[in-house]
Amino acid sequence: MAKEIITEREADYSAWYNDIVKHANLAENSPVKGCMIIKPYGFAIWENMRDQLDKMFKDTGHVNAYFPLLIPKSFLSKEAEHVEGFAKECAVVTHHRLMNNPDGDGVVVDPSAKLTEELIVRPTSETIIWHTYKNWISSYRDLPLLINQWANVMRWEMRTRAFLRTTEFLWQEGHTAHASKDEAMAEARQMLDVYADFAENWMAMPVVKGIKTANERFAGADETFTIEALMQDGKALQSGTSHFLGQNFAKAFDVKFLNSNQKEEYVWATSWGVSTRLMGGLIMTHSDDDGLILPPRIAPVQVAIVPIPKPNEVVNEAVGKIMDELKAKGIRVQYDDDKKKRPGFKFNEIELRGIPIRIGVGKRDLENGTIEMVRRDTMEKSNPSLDGLADMITGLLEEIQDNMLAKAKARRAELTTSVDSFDEFKEVLENKGGFISAHWDGTTETELKIKELTKATIRCIPLGQEPEEGTCILTGKPSKQRVLFAKAY
Amino acid sequence: MAKEIITEREADYSAWYNDIVKHANLAENSPVKGCMIIKPYGFAIWENMRDQLDKMFKDTGHVNAYFPLLIPKSFLSKEAEHVEGFAKECAVVTHHRLMNNPDGDGVVVDPSAKLTEELIVRPTSETIIWHTYKNWISSYRDLPLLINQWANVMRWEMRTRAFLRTTEFLWQEGHTAHASKDEAMAEARQMLDVYADFAENWMAMPVVKGIKTANERFAGADETFTIEALMQDGKALQSGTSHFLGQNFAKAFDVKFLNSNQKEEYVWATSWGVSTRLMGGLIMTHSDDDGLILPPRIAPVQVAIVPIPKPNEVVNEAVGKIMDELKAKGIRVQYDDDKKKRPGFKFNEIELRGIPIRIGVGKRDLENGTIEMVRRDTMEKSNPSLDGLADMITGLLEEIQDNMLAKAKARRAELTTSVDSFDEFKEVLENKGGFISAHWDGTTETELKIKELTKATIRCIPLGQEPEEGTCILTGKPSKQRVLFAKAY
Repeated sequence: MAKEIITEREADYSAWYNDIVKHANLAENSPVKGCMIIKPYGFAIWENMRDQLDKMFKDTGHVNAYFPLLIPKSFLSKEAEHVEGFAKECAVVTHHRLMNNPDGDGVVVDPSAKLTEELIVRPTSETIIWHTYKNWISSYRDLPLLINQWANVMRWEMRTRAFLRTTEFLWQEGHTAHASKDEAMAEARQMLDVYADFAENWMAMPVVKGIKTANERFAGADETFTIEALMQDGKALQSGTSHFLGQNFAKAFDVKFLNSNQKEEYVWATSWGVSTRLMGGLIMTHSDDDGLILPPRIAPVQVAIVPIPKPNEVVNEAVGKIMDELKAKGIRVQYDDDKKKRPGFKFNEIELRGIPIRIGVGKRDLENGTIEMVRRDTMEKSNPSLDGLADMITGLLEEIQDNMLAKAKARRAELTTSVDSFDEFKEVLENKGGFISAHWDGTTETELKIKELTKATIRCIPLGQEPEEGTCILTGKPSKQRVLFAKAY
Repeated sequence: MAKEIITEREADYSAWYNDIVKHANLAENSPVKGCMIIKPYGFAIWENMRDQLDKMFKDTGHVNAYFPLLIPKSFLSKEAEHVEGFAKECAVVTHHRLMNNPDGDGVVVDPSAKLTEELIVRPTSETIIWHTYKNWISSYRDLPLLINQWANVMRWEMRTRAFLRTTEFLWQEGHTAHASKDEAMAEARQMLDVYADFAENWMAMPVVKGIKTANERFAGADETFTIEALMQDGKALQSGTSHFLGQNFAKAFDVKFLNSNQKEEYVWATSWGVSTRLMGGLIMTHSDDDGLILPPRIAPVQVAIVPIPKPNEVVNEAVGKIMDELKAKGIRVQYDDDKKKRPGFKFNEIELRGIPIRIGVGKRDLENGTIEMVRRDTMEKSNPSLDGLADMITGLLEEIQDNMLAKAKARRAELTTSVDSFDEFKEVLENKGGFISAHWDGTTETELKIKELTKATIRCIPLGQEPEEGTCILTGKPSKQRVLFAKAY
């Protein structure tokens, strides 16, 4: 039945994605172009992701703060590359009052309430934060500043898709200030590792850690690190970035400190962020034609229990005991005791929502001391005993988590190809997709030419990869290492 | 030393408040008029408040979701009273792009990127949420919807003060939909109780639960419930409101449902919110001339440990053990092992930040098996034994929490006066301040006249108060119950 409402991946991958978002109740379009409504179930998943990330940030010494939504327009211009990168997609607040329409119904903008300087809705907060840091930093003793913010931001996008690219999105943005280049660089690398750890061990989404080319760098960064994931359709998803900002923002906002030798220096900076875009990665890494599949560690409900065929005293009592046992192990469990819906309907809902384990409890099974169980990742059925059920399920949730990561890793390996010629490159890109590891001469010119010819971009220069002499697939010029190409979201 | 940097309450209450906000590192002004920056320490307190409130909302069956920041201007006009209430304080987005200034430096608004319909930054989200609920509700089986959102909102204010009144603020807004009037009313009352519970038992801030007069109602509500707290200067602070919205928004956005008799009805609604304004209430309920005083339950750090006079091996080892013991009891503890700052400097910082318990650990005391301890609420000093320290501190934190509430309650009792004539009313208002319980004839006209003459407003008609016949202090007309007047923030 799920299959009837969800378009199959093979038939139309994009429609499949939209169907999952819709029928798993994750999000929907809003009346404001490009802005989505995150529905309660989608938000519950995001909350779990956010809480875990927040814990990881705090465990690495960061604290949260909150900076204003609106930024004076002039701030954006202070860093030359930054304004280039963001000016074209800024929502602009020009007035602070509405008034009754003198010519008819409704309200109109009150022309007398025009702002002296326009304000932009933050597309990211480097400018207002570095303006603030100027007052917070004067000596090396004020450093490092390790601050994160959870916030909504806005980038006016022409083509939007739920979670993957929306005009407004939710994210976190870390903004740190350091007394030395090395320390800032180490921070940028550390946060990349935190993101990769989170993606792999919580979302079960394997990622490649790498460096962005100059052309793909964040506007205002000296170096951008990225985690790149591979979706089921062979397209890459940039899933999180961590920027070494050098002294660019410190210079733009005149933020200096006295070092331990009493000499004045500009402060070194990083910024790093992940957003609700991760939800898109989660969906496209794991889901199938029956709906969402959630890794247990971030699933709002890990075990769903359905009475067979209907709730009754005997079943309810048995379920009550099972739930107590599971909850005692910290397992998030839900009982659907709706009397009007049939089990088949409930099973479909549970599959659509990607709940890792589904349990059916009926009188007959209870007499044998067993239950029905289906794990969502493989749809494998079993009839485990009630004895030791909580321990078994605890283990099974871990197994599902591991299996989902292993499966995604295997697919990524399958979809990663090394090529040594441009013909081969085009052939793989067209017929197989995925990550393509190839030599590149290191110039933006070649990178853009390849993009123009094939729509593939350099996702990253992978970190920790063995250097390898070779020749650029397009120009034949010498190259010192392979880079990863892919078509991307 | 703290006294030197903090203005005394007696000298200038308003300057005292600003000094606490500044020197306890809670917040500061931003370059955007009326918008504040919430600094890490202030934000850590807010996080604790938010997390506890969130838990209480979830425990009462609510789920979180996220709706767009921007709202089409026309939505506001759909509910007649709502637009009256909010149109004058809306930030308006009119364009979606900046461009390089053709006449010089910097960027300017790109006139070709004008929006067809202006968007407002949400001052509250009833309109966009009820627009959405129309698609989510068709039958009584879809009800109730019990949804909350944590978000930033913006109301353009002319006179702002950190936390108490800011153009942008953080809050939660619950928006629920119900099949019956009674159920919606019960929800509005339940959330008022949740707020009062939170204020009293977590913030140690006693509140009066009551009903707002028609004149003070939320724009679009049939009934507004409020919790009103009393600050140390005798002014009231509206600290949270819960609105019974009747069918007003359902009618404005055409949201109907089929009831269990298959008849179509408009949906019943509530909304309820508390904001970062609570931080202002927290500060003004408890702080003194030495700084902030935090109730242990929401203090980011509950116990601060200072080495006397400096960290050394013996002291560090003893502190390590103490911290392990305290942490094992779930106590949030911090050790300030900075070698350059003297104990006196650290003590002042700890006092300024309102940390409930301060411990000094020195070699000499350790030889006697004791430590130095000061509780922030009373500044009482003691030299407890290391034996059983964790249990003692667990108990003391509870005692401090209780004592802070009791103290605030006693002050409120002291500052609540019953009066029976307008002369007495004016006399009390001028010389004593606080809540004034008085008879009122129930008309908006009289309410506004009293406000005009005295600046006092009716804070609420207290709930659960004995009815009492009397005569209005201003008009002498009959009155059935006393109401609470006060000057307010």
